[in-house]
Amino acid sequence: MYPNFLLKQAKLHPSGRALSFQQKEWTFEQLKEESLHFARKLKALDLSNKDRVAILSSSSDRLVIGIHALWQLGCEIVLLNERLTAAELQYQYVDSEATILLTSTEYKKTLSVPSIYTWEEIDQKEEIHFTMEPYWDDSRTLSIMYTSGTTGSPKGVRQTVRNHATNALSSNAQLGIQESESWLCSMPIYHISGLSILIRSVLLGLEVRLYDKFQLKEIVGDITSGRVTRMSVVSTTLQRIVHYMEENSLVPSSNFRGMLAGGGPIPKDYLERSTMLQLPVVQTYGMTETCSQTATLESKDAIRKIGSAGKALLLADIRIEGATKSGEPGEICITGDHVTNGYIGKYATIPSQQDGWLHTGDIGYLDEEGFLYVLDRRSDLIISGGENIYPAEVESVLLSYPGILDAGVIGIPHEKWGEVPKAFLVVAHSVELNEIETFCKSTLASYKIPKEWSIVNELPRNGAGKLLRRELRT
Amino acid sequence: MYPNFLLKQAKLHPSGRALSFQQKEWTFEQLKEESLHFARKLKALDLSNKDRVAILSSSSDRLVIGIHALWQLGCEIVLLNERLTAAELQYQYVDSEATILLTSTEYKKTLSVPSIYTWEEIDQKEEIHFTMEPYWDDSRTLSIMYTSGTTGSPKGVRQTVRNHATNALSSNAQLGIQESESWLCSMPIYHISGLSILIRSVLLGLEVRLYDKFQLKEIVGDITSGRVTRMSVVSTTLQRIVHYMEENSLVPSSNFRGMLAGGGPIPKDYLERSTMLQLPVVQTYGMTETCSQTATLESKDAIRKIGSAGKALLLADIRIEGATKSGEPGEICITGDHVTNGYIGKYATIPSQQDGWLHTGDIGYLDEEGFLYVLDRRSDLIISGGENIYPAEVESVLLSYPGILDAGVIGIPHEKWGEVPKAFLVVAHSVELNEIETFCKSTLASYKIPKEWSIVNELPRNGAGKLLRRELRT
Repeated sequence: MYPNFLLKQAKLHPSGRALSFQQKEWTFEQLKEESLHFARKLKALDLSNKDRVAILSSSSDRLVIGIHALWQLGCEIVLLNERLTAAELQYQYVDSEATILLTSTEYKKTLSVPSIYTWEEIDQKEEIHFTMEPYWDDSRTLSIMYTSGTTGSPKGVRQTVRNHATNALSSNAQLGIQESESWLCSMPIYHISGLSILIRSVLLGLEVRLYDKFQLKEIVGDITSGRVTRMSVVSTTLQRIVHYMEENSLVPSSNFRGMLAGGGPIPKDYLERSTMLQLPVVQTYGMTETCSQTATLESKDAIRKIGSAGKALLLADIRIEGATKSGEPGEICITGDHVTNGYIGKYATIPSQQDGWLHTGDIGYLDEEGFLYVLDRRSDLIISGGENIYPAEVESVLLSYPGILDAGVIGIPHEKWGEVPKAFLVVAHSVELNEIETFCKSTLASYKIPKEWSIVNELPRNGAGKLLRRELRT
Repeated sequence: MYPNFLLKQAKLHPSGRALSFQQKEWTFEQLKEESLHFARKLKALDLSNKDRVAILSSSSDRLVIGIHALWQLGCEIVLLNERLTAAELQYQYVDSEATILLTSTEYKKTLSVPSIYTWEEIDQKEEIHFTMEPYWDDSRTLSIMYTSGTTGSPKGVRQTVRNHATNALSSNAQLGIQESESWLCSMPIYHISGLSILIRSVLLGLEVRLYDKFQLKEIVGDITSGRVTRMSVVSTTLQRIVHYMEENSLVPSSNFRGMLAGGGPIPKDYLERSTMLQLPVVQTYGMTETCSQTATLESKDAIRKIGSAGKALLLADIRIEGATKSGEPGEICITGDHVTNGYIGKYATIPSQQDGWLHTGDIGYLDEEGFLYVLDRRSDLIISGGENIYPAEVESVLLSYPGILDAGVIGIPHEKWGEVPKAFLVVAHSVELNEIETFCKSTLASYKIPKEWSIVNELPRNGAGKLLRRELRT
């Protein structure tokens, strides 16, 4: 059992800063009041406990208040990625069996799903009173996020109260959050790296300083002025911040306690430059299935253990499948109460764990001190500007194009985005790459569309016919 | 599921300071190694998972290592209060169905229970290998402590893995423990205020700086030098520290982050003097049944909310039975995963909760901001130098003395101990108070023996015959 997160924090720190967005600020009491107000309007849609509600929205105060409102009603939220195409969104919406879709006016025009409402349409509803739950069961699902994993087809991952709370408390055991801290969130909230900031906020009483996009100058201003004490970054955003601070001879405020850097490895160069700037960087390894962080490398080990994602957090554990001693690589497996208990929709009957362990598909090893090194991402995952791209998904789209006989997709280095996808095609006759790109645009988010193409005679496959993507990289 | 506390911390911070006692220090790796070493010797006694082992010991490195060793073996420890008489100890040992009793040489001579071993006797055993459990179930009982509550007869309270972990993590959400902190423990470990410091240590990676008695000068030295960052106190010990610092014009180190003050209300005078000394004091309300803290008053509210024990911690909640609005007094009821699920022995079948709430028997109210004020301790509990005295237990002993027809016991103020017990007796014929005292000494710990006596014609009782102890106080 856990307390209703927002209600509890509003009791503990009613006048503590909970949220700031653009020129506005909310205390926990105000955030609670506005969330309850909006929840009473949502109630007019006849939403019940455990109803699923899909949300498609960029980061805004409306989104944060909407999420908290839905949780007050007992709903499960399905967070949709803004960068998906209409077809991809349609698939997730249908698979999730969501009752309604909440979104902004811009999206309403382009999407054709039933029961779609804008925030403003909800504002027009009459308020209907409901009784709040002061406590939440461990097993209640708070959020669902789609991830592809090894299958290539998106799976809706359930994130429960205990998953989220375990992650936040375990993270706090390492980070030691103090009262009145502020966490800058320029990550999309439809990613677990963003949503987990909201969760830490209501469990640990810290402010979320929310940005709807990566506004470099303002963000660096927050870091140098001490307006914020923490921030989540991916490799790309860290690089931009470091570069800007170097160019302008800026240093972080002494209040600034650290960058939580996830979404793939951080190049050594960025870490060294961060150290020069006295900008503490804490590297982390996590995923949707573990409600964010599983392992985290403390700032003090950043250089000594360069390339490592750190040790498993207090309430998490990692083992390497098949490894008999430290240093030996194998599949990274994770256990702990932060690990999802399963999926919804099409994959509802597929267990997410084997004997209590999540098999990530990622390859890595633990050194003799227990530091994790990730060697290869699951299913040759490509991480481009913090977004996950599963080659199997892109390949499957390419193979549906007439004249493409075989397709293999890998990530190639890219200065700005870290990686971008590159496609290797076996074709029956000459094809127009422009037309393939146009075809892709109709079904794939733009960041998933290959940026380089190569026509080959055949693809490397093993005896069982399995594509050997690693060989494409050499 | 939680990690094996000590093993996990030894993995996270192997070279972090775990324990210091007298001139010796242990890192988490050393504490783990010594605990495992001792566990393998204990294993020679044929101890199995879930066996109960009673411990009677003053604070020492042996005690800490012994506790961790028993937990590695899967045992449930029964912590006996050193200040009890042989008869009281005998009762608890038998009621707990402990397999063995571990103690020091001094106690072995005076106690006549079967299967009693000293630490040194265990040292002589051969080591027997066993397999450690890397994870602990939520419901596993780690410790048992006896408390009397409203019944007057001691009840063994079960404290599970989840109870302890919830308390420590919930406490951390407020205290924001940082790496390399050190918590001074001069509380007996057989009290939850002491044991909970050991638990916080292995969950949050902080050092326990252990004292076997309250050594005023050394303790103040630790506070002023910055050797420790936290300390648990009761009213009496706080007063002595404050007085000593005033007399010697001492101030705490800027590293010192706070006193956690429990075991009854702290007089306003002490709080004001602490503020003058810049000694942060955090008042708390907790008990054996809640694995220590349930509510805690932050330092910043110490003067504004004087007399309050603060708000319910993150993972705890408090309601006042029968109160319809804030400010109205009633019985304090507590919920949360830190609350015991039940008792052992004689009271094993008595539920500890009603509809998920622990009814404490304490009387109090919540103000409009949710701050708890404790008006009257359960069953007119007397707190003397941090030890709980239940009037019913003392009365029951007095009534067994020939010639005592009725007896009522209350607490009266005492400069050094906060409170001491006073007895009101109705006697059939003249009695010798000296003889009654001698009689008490054979069955009651000395701190429980009344320090004042009054012979009266009758005791105030209500219509149902219930003793009205409050009237004795007027």
